[in-house]
Amino acid sequence: MPKVQRLHGPTNPTLEDAAKAKVKYYCATVELRPEKEQEYRELHANVWPEVRAAIAEANIRNYNIYITEIAGRRFIVSHFEYIGTNPDADFASIAKDPTTKAKWWPLTDACQIRLSGALEGSQWQPMEQVMHLD
Amino acid sequence: MPKVQRLHGPTNPTLEDAAKAKVKYYCATVELRPEKEQEYRELHANVWPEVRAAIAEANIRNYNIYITEIAGRRFIVSHFEYIGTNPDADFASIAKDPTTKAKWWPLTDACQIRLSGALEGSQWQPMEQVMHLD
Repeated sequence: MPKVQRLHGPTNPTLEDAAKAKVKYYCATVELRPEKEQEYRELHANVWPEVRAAIAEANIRNYNIYITEIAGRRFIVSHFEYIGTNPDADFASIAKDPTTKAKWWPLTDACQIRLSGALEGSQWQPMEQVMHLD
Repeated sequence: MPKVQRLHGPTNPTLEDAAKAKVKYYCATVELRPEKEQEYRELHANVWPEVRAAIAEANIRNYNIYITEIAGRRFIVSHFEYIGTNPDADFASIAKDPTTKAKWWPLTDACQIRLSGALEGSQWQPMEQVMHLD
């Protein structure tokens, strides 16, 4: 067996795989409860190590979150790169981290209002990508 | 003078500069006129070469555009990386491309409805970044 350096755990891509894989981009939105905005900001200014690790393990990179206001309502927008080859399995893997599932998500979910376009089992309404320029 | 390879024009960073520079992220939104959505999609499915060149010259990379719907209204979200060191000058430089200024922007501006948070001289309402994970 050739010796390969993998990015994180044993099922994650090798550095070589990652370099060859085409990065995919994911953008999504959810409404922000105004009375929870300060708490949401504080949580995301210092994301817990276990949550960061679960995200990295899921082959997510350059994960940015933004806040904006439209028509007097507050919205959260997330944008990240996915460098793996099985997004469904990788995104589902985040729920295996007990800290994320039992502690982080209950706090962040309570800051959010699902939009009608959110997928089942998710708080986030995905956006459709219509352009990519390298 | 050492021989350096610059990414694009003579004022742009060298490959070495770019590798050292910290990437900055920009996310913004504007409303989409529903009756212009098809035209907007077609324009962005095949961005004109002059427009692509002006964007690359302005040290913008991985420029993605998304469409989403909130409360029955259509919105465009843009997200890109900036790898230069003078964003004001670089973003202003895009207007120096005559094709972008005189032909592309009039078409795309006509597809958009400015939001109240847009900056003067721009169609786009910037979003505030509240998290970055590498």
